Amino acid sequence: MNCEIISVGTELLLGDILNTNTQYLAQELAAMGIPVLFQSTVGDNASRLDEMLELALSRSDVIITTGGLGPTPDDLTKEVCCAKAGATLTMHKESFEKIEAFFQSLGREMTESNKKQAMLPEGGLIFQNPYGTAPGCGVEFGGKVILMLPGPPREMRPMFEAYVKPYLLKFSGGTIVSHSLHVFGMGESTMSAAVRDLEDGVNPTVAPYAKDGEALLRVTAMAKTERECEALCRPVMEEIRRRLGSKIYGVDCGNLQTRVVELLKKQKKQVSTAESCTAGLIAKRLTEVPGSSDVFECGIVSYSNEVKQRILGVKEESLKQFGAVSEQVAAEMAQGAYRVGKADFGIGVTGIAGPGGGSQEKPVGLSFVALYDGTKTVVKKVLTGRGGDNREYNRTVAASNALDLLRRALEELDTGSESCDK
Amino acid sequence: MNCEIISVGTELLLGDILNTNTQYLAQELAAMGIPVLFQSTVGDNASRLDEMLELALSRSDVIITTGGLGPTPDDLTKEVCCAKAGATLTMHKESFEKIEAFFQSLGREMTESNKKQAMLPEGGLIFQNPYGTAPGCGVEFGGKVILMLPGPPREMRPMFEAYVKPYLLKFSGGTIVSHSLHVFGMGESTMSAAVRDLEDGVNPTVAPYAKDGEALLRVTAMAKTERECEALCRPVMEEIRRRLGSKIYGVDCGNLQTRVVELLKKQKKQVSTAESCTAGLIAKRLTEVPGSSDVFECGIVSYSNEVKQRILGVKEESLKQFGAVSEQVAAEMAQGAYRVGKADFGIGVTGIAGPGGGSQEKPVGLSFVALYDGTKTVVKKVLTGRGGDNREYNRTVAASNALDLLRRALEELDTGSESCDK
Repeated sequence: MNCEIISVGTELLLGDILNTNTQYLAQELAAMGIPVLFQSTVGDNASRLDEMLELALSRSDVIITTGGLGPTPDDLTKEVCCAKAGATLTMHKESFEKIEAFFQSLGREMTESNKKQAMLPEGGLIFQNPYGTAPGCGVEFGGKVILMLPGPPREMRPMFEAYVKPYLLKFSGGTIVSHSLHVFGMGESTMSAAVRDLEDGVNPTVAPYAKDGEALLRVTAMAKTERECEALCRPVMEEIRRRLGSKIYGVDCGNLQTRVVELLKKQKKQVSTAESCTAGLIAKRLTEVPGSSDVFECGIVSYSNEVKQRILGVKEESLKQFGAVSEQVAAEMAQGAYRVGKADFGIGVTGIAGPGGGSQEKPVGLSFVALYDGTKTVVKKVLTGRGGDNREYNRTVAASNALDLLRRALEELDTGSESCDK
Repeated sequence: MNCEIISVGTELLLGDILNTNTQYLAQELAAMGIPVLFQSTVGDNASRLDEMLELALSRSDVIITTGGLGPTPDDLTKEVCCAKAGATLTMHKESFEKIEAFFQSLGREMTESNKKQAMLPEGGLIFQNPYGTAPGCGVEFGGKVILMLPGPPREMRPMFEAYVKPYLLKFSGGTIVSHSLHVFGMGESTMSAAVRDLEDGVNPTVAPYAKDGEALLRVTAMAKTERECEALCRPVMEEIRRRLGSKIYGVDCGNLQTRVVELLKKQKKQVSTAESCTAGLIAKRLTEVPGSSDVFECGIVSYSNEVKQRILGVKEESLKQFGAVSEQVAAEMAQGAYRVGKADFGIGVTGIAGPGGGSQEKPVGLSFVALYDGTKTVVKKVLTGRGGDNREYNRTVAASNALDLLRRALEELDTGSESCDK
C-alpha cells in the first residue's frame, strides 16, 4: 500500500504558511511502515487539484489531502475529490448539528456558508472535528481511497490520530507502538554509529533524530496487539540502553527540562539559576514545564560583572584573575544561585555566545556550566565549535549542558566533570 | 513566467526534516511576482525524479530543485536534471579548487566522493557556495530553465539571494525592494481590515503576516532600479503609517526585542526585569540581540511569593490583598527590578500561563505587565483569551506586551495603560 500526500492551499504556494502538516503525516505514515513516494502542494484551484488527483491515483493507493475544507467558495477539496470518486455530497445531519452547537457555544450565529461544511460524501467515511467546524471525510472507490483532512494542524492532527490511523492500520490488521529514547551528550553520528546494526532492523525500526545538540532514537514496532508491539520493542530498547548507558536521559519524556522537573518533583528538591550567556534561557526552559513552580522559585540573570558580584557574591579577585568566562566564576555563580534562591541546587552558567567577544584562548561557543549542591561544586567546560552567527545554538547547548549536569546529579550518576571545590 | 519547486530527499518523504526551503522559495518568488502553481517532493530516486521533471517541464518555465547535490551516490539531482536537459557534467576547475580549500581550512582530506560535487554542467550556470561544499548550478534548454540548489537552508538561502534572484530578475529586466512594517497591539485581521484596499495593489504589493500575537505588513515593489522601487514603496508605507500610527514599532527591524535594544542603546539606558509567569523569557529575548549586554545587566525570575518579597521587595499586604497576579504586584515587581538592577527602567510581569491555576475571575491567559521609570509606573492588563495548553503562547504574548510597553515609553508615546502610582 502506497500513500501520497496532497496539500491544498494558495497560502502554501505563496509561502505565507509553513507546511508542517506534510511532515507530521510523513512521520506518522513512516512509523506505520506505509511508503510515501510523493508529496505535492496545489492552490485552491479546481482544475489543478483535479489534475493532481488524476496523477496521484495513477501511482498511489491512498491519497491524503489537507486543507480546503473551509466554508468559503475557495474551499473545494471535497467537491473535487468526490467528483473524482463519483461520490455525492449530501447534508450530514449529525455534523450539521455539531457545527450549529459549536457556533452556539461561541454565542455566534451559524452562517449559510458554514452549512457547506456539513455537506459530506454519501456513504463515505466521516471524521468528527472537536477543534473546529470542518469535519474530515473519506471516499473508497476502485481499490483506491481519498482521505480529506482540514488544514489547521490543531484540527488535522487529532483527527488523524483518532480516525485515520486506526483506519489505515485496519489494512495491516494490526497496531503500532513507538518509543523515543532521548539522548544527551553525544552527537547524532556517534549515536547512530553505536546502534547502526539496530537501525537495519525492520520490526521494530530504529530511527535517529537530532536537534540543537540533542538526539533521540525512535523505536517503532507493528503487531496485532499493543502487547506484542511492546514485546518487540523491549529487547531492542534494552540493547540500546546497554550501549548508550546514562547518555539516555529518558524515554518518551519530551525533553531535558521535562525530565529534570520530573526528577526534582519526585525528590522534592528545588533548583535556582544564575545565568550569564544563557540569560534566562534555562529559567525559561524549566518553566515551560507545567507545574515547575514546585521546583523552581528563583533565577538570576547576571549579564554584568557588577551584578555577578553584588547579587551573586562572585569575588572580584575571581573575575580579575580568571575573567568572567571561567570555571571559577561559573562555580561561584552556582554557589550564589544556591544561596540567593535558598534552593537545594544552584546552577551557574557563563560563556561567549557570539557573534562578538571571542578570542583565541576563549572562542565563541565556549561556556562553563556549574552545579552546586550545598557541599560540592562540579563544573563542565562546553565547546560547541561554532562561531559566527550561531548565538542561539551556543546558548541552547550551554543551557542543555547545565540541565544535563543537574539531571545526572539527581540520578546520582557520575557527573563526568571536574570538581572545583576548595 | 511560471515557476515550480521540486524538493529532493528521502528524509523529506519520511518526515525526518521539515521542508522550510519550499516556504522560503515560495515567499521570495511571490515577492518577485513569479507565480508558483505546484510544489512537489520526491525521494532520492532517479526514475521518480525524472518522472517529476517531465511533468514539471510540461507545465512550468522555471524549475527550482533543492537537495541531492551532496557527495554520496544517493545524491543524483544534477545527474538526472542534466540528462533531461541534454547537458554534460564536467569537472569545474574553480569549484574543485574551492572544495579542496574548504577541506584544507578544516584540516581534513578531501575525499574522492567530494570530487563529484565539482562536476557541473558544461556551459551551464554555476552558483558558488561559501557555506558548504556543494556548488549550485543551472541549465537552460528549449525555453526552459532548471536551477539546482543545495538542500541545507543555510547554504541554499544565501545562494538564492546571491545568484538565483538576480538571474530571475533579469527576465523582468528589473529589481525588487521589500520592506517589513512590524506591528504590535492589533491582530492580523484588524490590521488587514485597516489596509484592505492597499492589499489589492499590484506594485507595490502589500501582504499581511501574523505570528504569536505579532503582525507585519510586507510592502514589495518591482521596478528598473532600486530607487524606483523605493519611490513606489514610499507613499504606500506612509499611508500605512498614517493608518496604523504607533502600532507600527519598526521597519525591517526583525522583532520587538531588537527594536527595544536599539532604542535603549541610542538613549544609553538600561532595563532590568522581574518575571513571574514569563520566567526568563523577556531576559532571553532581550539577550538574543547581539550587544544587548550594554542595555541589560540584571534579570530576576521570581516564581514564588517568597522570592517576590525577599528579593524584589513586593509587599506582603499586596500579595495578600490583591494576589500574586494583580496590577499592584506587577507594579511592585517593576519597582523592585528597577532597584535591584540599578537600571533606568524596571519591568514586572505576573500572570497565569496555564494550563492550571486559572479561575473565573483570573483566567488562564491573564497577565499584568508593568514598567517603572524611577518616577511613575504604568501597568497593562493583558488577556489572551486562550486557556488550555496555550502556555507558551500566553507567555510569549505577555513578554511581547512588556517589551512593547518599554518601546512606547522610549519613543515617548502614550503607553495607553492605566497608571497606578501612589
